[in-house]
Amino acid sequence: MDLVLIAIVLGLLAIIYGFVTSRQVLRADPGNARMQEIAAAIQEGAQAYLKRQYTTIAIVGIVVAILVAIFLGAVSAIGFVIGAILSGVAGFIGMNISVRANVRTAAAAQTGLQQGLTLAFRAGAITGLLVAGLALLAIAGFYYGLTTLGGYTVGMGDRTVVDGLVALAFGASLISIFARLGGGIFTKAADVGADLVGKVEAGIPEDDPRNPAVIADNVGDNVGDCAGMAADLFETYVVTVGATMVLTALLLTGAGDALPGLMALPLLIGGVCIVTSIIGTYFVKLGKSNSIMGAMYKGFLVTAILSVPAIWLVMQWVLGDMNAPVGGGLLEGVRNIDAGAPLAEEGTSSLVGGFTGWGLFWSAMVGLAITGLIIWITEYYTGTQFRPVRSIAKASETGHGTNVIQGLAISLEATALPTIVIVAGIVVTYQLAGLMGIAYAATAMLALAGMVVALDAYGPVTDNAGGIAEMASMDDTVRARTDALDAVGNTTKAVTKGYAIGSAGLAALVLFAAYTTDLAEYFPLLDVDFSLENPYVIVGLLLGALLPYLFAAMGMTAVGRAAGDVVKDVRDQFAADKGIMAGTSKPDYARTVDLVTKAAIKEMIIPSLLPVLAPIVVFFVITGVAGAQNGLAALGALLLGVIVGGLFVALSMTSGGGAWDNAKKYIEDGNHGGKGSEAHKAAVTGDTVGDPYKDTAGPAINPMIKITNIVALLLLAAIAG
Amino acid sequence: MDLVLIAIVLGLLAIIYGFVTSRQVLRADPGNARMQEIAAAIQEGAQAYLKRQYTTIAIVGIVVAILVAIFLGAVSAIGFVIGAILSGVAGFIGMNISVRANVRTAAAAQTGLQQGLTLAFRAGAITGLLVAGLALLAIAGFYYGLTTLGGYTVGMGDRTVVDGLVALAFGASLISIFARLGGGIFTKAADVGADLVGKVEAGIPEDDPRNPAVIADNVGDNVGDCAGMAADLFETYVVTVGATMVLTALLLTGAGDALPGLMALPLLIGGVCIVTSIIGTYFVKLGKSNSIMGAMYKGFLVTAILSVPAIWLVMQWVLGDMNAPVGGGLLEGVRNIDAGAPLAEEGTSSLVGGFTGWGLFWSAMVGLAITGLIIWITEYYTGTQFRPVRSIAKASETGHGTNVIQGLAISLEATALPTIVIVAGIVVTYQLAGLMGIAYAATAMLALAGMVVALDAYGPVTDNAGGIAEMASMDDTVRARTDALDAVGNTTKAVTKGYAIGSAGLAALVLFAAYTTDLAEYFPLLDVDFSLENPYVIVGLLLGALLPYLFAAMGMTAVGRAAGDVVKDVRDQFAADKGIMAGTSKPDYARTVDLVTKAAIKEMIIPSLLPVLAPIVVFFVITGVAGAQNGLAALGALLLGVIVGGLFVALSMTSGGGAWDNAKKYIEDGNHGGKGSEAHKAAVTGDTVGDPYKDTAGPAINPMIKITNIVALLLLAAIAG
Repeated sequence: MDLVLIAIVLGLLAIIYGFVTSRQVLRADPGNARMQEIAAAIQEGAQAYLKRQYTTIAIVGIVVAILVAIFLGAVSAIGFVIGAILSGVAGFIGMNISVRANVRTAAAAQTGLQQGLTLAFRAGAITGLLVAGLALLAIAGFYYGLTTLGGYTVGMGDRTVVDGLVALAFGASLISIFARLGGGIFTKAADVGADLVGKVEAGIPEDDPRNPAVIADNVGDNVGDCAGMAADLFETYVVTVGATMVLTALLLTGAGDALPGLMALPLLIGGVCIVTSIIGTYFVKLGKSNSIMGAMYKGFLVTAILSVPAIWLVMQWVLGDMNAPVGGGLLEGVRNIDAGAPLAEEGTSSLVGGFTGWGLFWSAMVGLAITGLIIWITEYYTGTQFRPVRSIAKASETGHGTNVIQGLAISLEATALPTIVIVAGIVVTYQLAGLMGIAYAATAMLALAGMVVALDAYGPVTDNAGGIAEMASMDDTVRARTDALDAVGNTTKAVTKGYAIGSAGLAALVLFAAYTTDLAEYFPLLDVDFSLENPYVIVGLLLGALLPYLFAAMGMTAVGRAAGDVVKDVRDQFAADKGIMAGTSKPDYARTVDLVTKAAIKEMIIPSLLPVLAPIVVFFVITGVAGAQNGLAALGALLLGVIVGGLFVALSMTSGGGAWDNAKKYIEDGNHGGKGSEAHKAAVTGDTVGDPYKDTAGPAINPMIKITNIVALLLLAAIAG
Repeated sequence: MDLVLIAIVLGLLAIIYGFVTSRQVLRADPGNARMQEIAAAIQEGAQAYLKRQYTTIAIVGIVVAILVAIFLGAVSAIGFVIGAILSGVAGFIGMNISVRANVRTAAAAQTGLQQGLTLAFRAGAITGLLVAGLALLAIAGFYYGLTTLGGYTVGMGDRTVVDGLVALAFGASLISIFARLGGGIFTKAADVGADLVGKVEAGIPEDDPRNPAVIADNVGDNVGDCAGMAADLFETYVVTVGATMVLTALLLTGAGDALPGLMALPLLIGGVCIVTSIIGTYFVKLGKSNSIMGAMYKGFLVTAILSVPAIWLVMQWVLGDMNAPVGGGLLEGVRNIDAGAPLAEEGTSSLVGGFTGWGLFWSAMVGLAITGLIIWITEYYTGTQFRPVRSIAKASETGHGTNVIQGLAISLEATALPTIVIVAGIVVTYQLAGLMGIAYAATAMLALAGMVVALDAYGPVTDNAGGIAEMASMDDTVRARTDALDAVGNTTKAVTKGYAIGSAGLAALVLFAAYTTDLAEYFPLLDVDFSLENPYVIVGLLLGALLPYLFAAMGMTAVGRAAGDVVKDVRDQFAADKGIMAGTSKPDYARTVDLVTKAAIKEMIIPSLLPVLAPIVVFFVITGVAGAQNGLAALGALLLGVIVGGLFVALSMTSGGGAWDNAKKYIEDGNHGGKGSEAHKAAVTGDTVGDPYKDTAGPAINPMIKITNIVALLLLAAIAG
């Protein structure tokens, strides 16, 4: 049986899991009429937003698809469209599950914490496995169509498959940046706006049904934290696994008959890890200590541990002899790996110019280890039981200013350990198997996406469940249970973002290698100098590092502006109808939802185009000033500059935001004066600041980095063609 | 007459200007007894702090000096000590002028705005010209001593002079990072602490004499914004001009007899610009519009415009034929400049392998233009009449959270234009004269340091004057005048920081070139690969970019912690003696000053050692894992990573902080509800957050970048020796 077909079958397994589990979720008790009424309003708002968002994106998508078809041919255009559509589908399905699971989680939480957890986590697992499954199906299906059905061959001078895979990744990334940013602006404009005018001005609690922005806030959880996140992780999966395949095709050209197996290997790793992720989901259960995070860890650990023999099995199966040089020894096409040689020259390694199956296997293990470490570090920085969150909570005692100062300090500090882990990962995997080692570490990280996304997607469900419990005036114990689930959700949401950006750090190296290899293939006579001694390389690094700053500035401003609109709308509604605050008449929820929808769609366009246009502008300007050689050097440096700058901006924003949010929750648990104290007010300010940090600007940097990289690759293909 | 002696004479001119002008300042009316009493308390506190700070630094300095003597020889150790001592002297004198001018400015402001401006600006000009003069004297004197008196020659295989200049720069940088950070922690811990417990808790105005932290706050302006800043700019000057000389010695080895002239040229540029700066100071006068910023611009513009012919004259004089290739055509030793060749290959330039006097001249002009543009951009981002500050003020209407969100958005955005200006500067000067072009642009920037520091150092004087006016219950018009002067001070303070970090962007390239040239000289057989294709280069870039984040996190945390101590101390004083709030008994100012002093000294040590130790650790770890070749590659990349990361962190923090401060001032001017409104409270929060951003963490990144670079250069020399 064709290896790729096996990957496709394993991808379908994820879809089947999704179907079966979603039927289980839908069979659960949907609560009373009031709860269902609220849930329906949220559902309606989310669907209306997503419809409008995807309509707008579709227009951009069609224009870009036509450009891709003109410059890169029909196959690439098809790849682009598949990537784009499935990215949208991943977000859409995730949202649809989420808006149905929320009310059922609220209902289940009436029975107990375990029941609420089970329902919310199942909903998350559906999204997680659909994201991983669809992503695997997208790449494997497209690749199968091109090679087995279309008859295109990899390597041998035919670029169709490689360009097609890059275009597929481009489609996924382009849609996902719109989804991440549009959803992120929606959710935080609604959240911040609702908090400002509700909690701060009117003095009514969060999720109070008298607040006209309350439905918009709950819609936001679904379109931002769920749909946007799903599209983002779909993109991360497709780009990472796709880049590994592209690098295999470009570098291991001497592998001969072994090449099809090597091309299929990343897909198979993704496939078997879908199985281990499905198994892991059944282990997410509260233990004796009732620790929710502990339950999450159990599920993740089962998946990670089972993935070790699973990955070993497929590697053993595909490669045969794990000790033989990968690529059958015909490694004349292997570039760059020689740079790992110095050790060998000193007699401590035998990896000169090649690597073994064991090298790839251990690199994949490093990928799993990085994932685990990032989860652990993120929990440290965002969990309520550790120093960082507690230091922010303590700083809240002395006021708004010190809360924000300490939060910013923690957000800056939170970049250190993940960076060191990523750097160590680069060094070790490069020693193990050169660039392919780095690529396999990234692939193994993403292979766990089903499980990691499950952990994340459970968050918005519990957040919504809490909102419904509040609005439907359910018993306080229900809200207490959903709050406990939600606090862990803040950590798991931060985990996914750290994980996505961490994998981007590795994937960026792989994409840069693809860029330089492409360059050598397209322009063999051009000697592009990527040395740091070339000032145009520094220029590229600086401009690349600037992009995340500018992009984040735009995202933050957009949230501020849209939140201001929400505040005005709510004030107007309160002023026009005094019955709203009295509780005698219902606010016009739909009007606020509509307003946020329009604002988010309008605000997402320009920042999303920044990473598409920046590489093109930089290339042409530098080429005009200093020749194509330096233009290409600056463009290559831009790719790395955007990750060197973006890694830190993204890590600081996502961890810092999570820490602020949980510092507030920690105070609400009765520490430092508890709810209503001055410290609590200061913590609400920190939480508000953290909102666009962690849910708008920070996470959107991951797809932004990818787009910059992919546009550069496509630009090369376009100017060569 | 020896060219270097002329530079020394011009440096002495600055000192003479300082003496004469300080006598003028001291002759001015020192105000009434109450004012003098307050000023004496500030003076005493500032002196006590500086004494303790420099004692602590001296211990570190002596240890490092011994290490330098052991690893690099006696001459380097002497250079280190000169740099260190004069850096301290620059800070000390600046502070001494400032603590005497503050009370006189308050007295002068009784007469009118112009009188207050004249006095405060004169005090600033003394500090500015002493910084520039001492820096020029340090390099020129040391260089003169080594070459003319000591008989050492530049080039010809003798590294004594080059290593000595690097050690001089190291001394200046090491002291300045302690001064910047220690002073920064002091000033902001006192400021934030005083505001939190005074304005926010006790509801008493800023600078109210009942607040026990009020003297500490005013001491902070002097030891942080004045002494710390002066040491920082002294360091920037020494490193930039020194690096240009080092690069000249390393690259233009084929210049033969012309080399001494080329070595003296940067010193002469610095010398003539001291003259133009002195002239410029006399043009700082209010026009009809009474615009304080306009008065500042007049002074700067006169200096900048006069510097054009002045620089042209010295270049013409030193180089003779401005059209001849610099270095007499014997350019075999010129490295890297060939990288600028592509244009020539396409037939549009004739700079292959060399450059002319005109190339250097226009590069210097680009340096002047960069300085002007950075001032203009900084004014846009921090001035009360433009969009950024007004957007923060407007966002304050909806609360603390939106104020901080908008402030962060502006701080992120504020990095874009300066980066583009710096990048354009790199591209243009590199086209004009290769790496030497970049070096001359940086040198010309720093040549204006006398004027730029004058603009900055005037700020803390007016800030103090306002404090004294408040405490001495002077007429409200006095406070209104000092407030107007202080608002511009926020902008000019941000200007200097942007200018320092911008010049660091250029200087870092020069230092990196020195690193690679040194490498080739020390280890001619080692083929170090600085290409972005080498993963160890990426590792170095990532770790380098991490340093400013970690450093800033430490600085922010330190301020938060020390401010918390201040709050507790003030609360204790209020609780112990009810008479303080009633105004019947005096608080114990000295106790608070002493507490902040201890905290600042303790907190400054570890972050300051980070840039010293990081390059050493990274080099040895990567060498251990992947060989010395990759260790050296990672170390080189670390140097550029720290600037790629640090440029953005520093720019965003310094501009953002200035914008927050002035948004508060804008509201206090009666906008968005004015003083006491909800918007004002939110703006106070933003200002508090901005404080450690702009005055502690942000500005200290500039010396941090330099130290990382210099330590790497010294490390090379040490392992080679």
